[in-house]
Amino acid sequence: MGLVVQKYGGSSVADAEGIKRVAKRVVEAKKNGHQVVVVVSAMGDTTDELIDLAQEVSPIPSGREFDMLLTAGERISMALLAMAIKNLGHEAQSFTGSQAGVITDSVHNKARIIDVTPGRIKTSVDEGNIAIVAGFQGVSQDKKDITTLGRGGSDTTAVALAAALDADVCEIYTDVDGVFTADPRVVKKARKIDWISFEDMLELASSGSKVLLHRCVEYARRYNIPIHVRSSFSGLKGTWVSNEPQGDQPMEQAIISGVAHDTSEAKVTVVGVPDKPGEAARIFRAIADSEVNIDMVVQNVSAAATGLTDISFTLPKDEGRKAVAALEKTRAAVGFDSLRYDDQIAKISLVGAGMKTNPGVTATFFEALSNAGVNIELISTSEIRISVVTRADDVKEAVQAVHSAFGLDSESDEAVVYGGTGR
Amino acid sequence: MGLVVQKYGGSSVADAEGIKRVAKRVVEAKKNGHQVVVVVSAMGDTTDELIDLAQEVSPIPSGREFDMLLTAGERISMALLAMAIKNLGHEAQSFTGSQAGVITDSVHNKARIIDVTPGRIKTSVDEGNIAIVAGFQGVSQDKKDITTLGRGGSDTTAVALAAALDADVCEIYTDVDGVFTADPRVVKKARKIDWISFEDMLELASSGSKVLLHRCVEYARRYNIPIHVRSSFSGLKGTWVSNEPQGDQPMEQAIISGVAHDTSEAKVTVVGVPDKPGEAARIFRAIADSEVNIDMVVQNVSAAATGLTDISFTLPKDEGRKAVAALEKTRAAVGFDSLRYDDQIAKISLVGAGMKTNPGVTATFFEALSNAGVNIELISTSEIRISVVTRADDVKEAVQAVHSAFGLDSESDEAVVYGGTGR
Repeated sequence: MGLVVQKYGGSSVADAEGIKRVAKRVVEAKKNGHQVVVVVSAMGDTTDELIDLAQEVSPIPSGREFDMLLTAGERISMALLAMAIKNLGHEAQSFTGSQAGVITDSVHNKARIIDVTPGRIKTSVDEGNIAIVAGFQGVSQDKKDITTLGRGGSDTTAVALAAALDADVCEIYTDVDGVFTADPRVVKKARKIDWISFEDMLELASSGSKVLLHRCVEYARRYNIPIHVRSSFSGLKGTWVSNEPQGDQPMEQAIISGVAHDTSEAKVTVVGVPDKPGEAARIFRAIADSEVNIDMVVQNVSAAATGLTDISFTLPKDEGRKAVAALEKTRAAVGFDSLRYDDQIAKISLVGAGMKTNPGVTATFFEALSNAGVNIELISTSEIRISVVTRADDVKEAVQAVHSAFGLDSESDEAVVYGGTGR
Repeated sequence: MGLVVQKYGGSSVADAEGIKRVAKRVVEAKKNGHQVVVVVSAMGDTTDELIDLAQEVSPIPSGREFDMLLTAGERISMALLAMAIKNLGHEAQSFTGSQAGVITDSVHNKARIIDVTPGRIKTSVDEGNIAIVAGFQGVSQDKKDITTLGRGGSDTTAVALAAALDADVCEIYTDVDGVFTADPRVVKKARKIDWISFEDMLELASSGSKVLLHRCVEYARRYNIPIHVRSSFSGLKGTWVSNEPQGDQPMEQAIISGVAHDTSEAKVTVVGVPDKPGEAARIFRAIADSEVNIDMVVQNVSAAATGLTDISFTLPKDEGRKAVAALEKTRAAVGFDSLRYDDQIAKISLVGAGMKTNPGVTATFFEALSNAGVNIELISTSEIRISVVTRADDVKEAVQAVHSAFGLDSESDEAVVYGGTGR
């Protein structure tokens, strides 16, 4: 017997039927002898409806009040889930983020957790209850105001609670069967991964895999909380994310964990930058000051004849306009020739700690792309990841080719449940 | 400059337009130099929608979780109202019942306020903010669980906060222009009352007037908080409820404040009760044990020949079945003949402290009913109220006749805004 934290996303509790289905699953875990803490998101479209209401009332809703508004969503779903569980004959109590001791900083709409003091949750489960906790929300340490955690907040709540309660596992229920070797919508023969290390999962998450967000995996790694990503619909075993393989999982890690792709980015190239100290710093200071997050950065050796170089970087498409405007302002000071903006790109990443000790991975990767007729525009690598930028039109062929080249294709076409990202 | 507590009901904040209209009115009070605390109910049908959802999930929603669910309603309306006020260029902060220091007992769904510690509200208004507080909700003293206050809860929140903050007035905004000498839907010539004493208002509230609930008036009387009941639509002066007349109000109280009626009750008659000590006690102990609230109780002198008497009482229609069942169980022990149950009755009450010092009020009352051809079935009086039970079919004629007989009719047909009870 141990303590399990389960997290259910909005698509799992979209309506009364969904809530009843989740209630049954929660009760199963309790019947199996576990203490159970459940973290739940707002029902389906609730958050969007609340945002619409806010827009009707005020064009620029304030941070504090916006958080107060949005947190009504989980309050509804968690109370309903507790009722549904009680209706199955088990005791349940729901708790707001504040009641559950989720203490955050004061940055409304994207607060960061700074402490978790789950005394009430501990007492509740020790008394035999199933504790239901509102995901996505907390209370600020200094002002005691209600805060929300921003994107992927409920997953982070779950992992943070699991860490504070010293849980055996944090189960993230979603609408897919787990983490796959590639996006099953792109690669039919993608395989579900049984186990993946925190490191590889972090790289996949920052390379476009949407099942888990980087923030949540990072938190789990820091406190060494195993995550089990699984479907709330199928009941199958999902993917374990942890430091070491669990139970009957293969002890040796696969060389390559998976192929991720991302078509949400654009590429900016600053052409004709004088190749002298300080120019790159000026460029990226301007970007940082406009609060744009950049991803890959590539600079090649400069042409000896001109003393000029090109600097390229990728960034989220919806921040492109801001970045270009910021750069235009520095043009005179930096003295570059021109800017190129391209949002028809895809980033394809190969992730796997095994590549550290297996020479030839890079070669195989590039050969696969070449054989598929895919041109490489940028290359960037970390110790356990290789990323390339290609044309957006090539993304499907590129991912499939790389997936096959590394022997990741499953024998048979598996039945894959997939219906969106579920957050 | 003083502190004003304003309360807006669900019909006043039913949609984005309503919220913006309320925001303007709140800002007006602030511009007039007042510190403003606003208590707000859930938007229009929100509460009903949440109740429906709960029913879908569980046939018998639990108290604690039901309260957690329902309180999402005010959380939405208060955050939106704060946003709307900020959009008008004024500072506003919303607070849950718990944050506002509304401490209650642990009786879920109908908790009673046992303390109000409005430190955060005080700080907020002292810093220049308009404080928005969720009505209808609090937090239990012992378990720190979220509670709701039951029917009329938001009015009670407003009065309780006004008392704790030593406010100058508690303004209850609703969808009628104030308290009337009779229900304007029944009596076209009903007049708006400019001022009424707490005592008369309490009697009207317990006699069927729905503008203010007894509980809220009782609280206001205990802490001597003047209430100003007014329309959130018209902007007219409404009705002041207080110990003494305010400002330019007439110093002398009207003899009769108004005529109330109530068609929500039924009448139970226990026929042939042995007229000896202890029988009535047995009957009402049985009723009390079944948790039925009774209203009027009438027993007449017994017929000397038989030694038997009849005992009648009125009670809410929806508790009739429970009461009759409880009485049937005592039939053998008490030895009464039979039970009569009648839900086609109306209660008509004349209220006014002036009747204490004006002989002839009772006579005028009964003559008016007689002239209108209305038969009286039961009579019950207090020091400042006379109530009779009549046939439900007669209620309109009866109320109109009494209203005219006491000179309460207005000269002209006033334009009366009336659209429901707004709670």
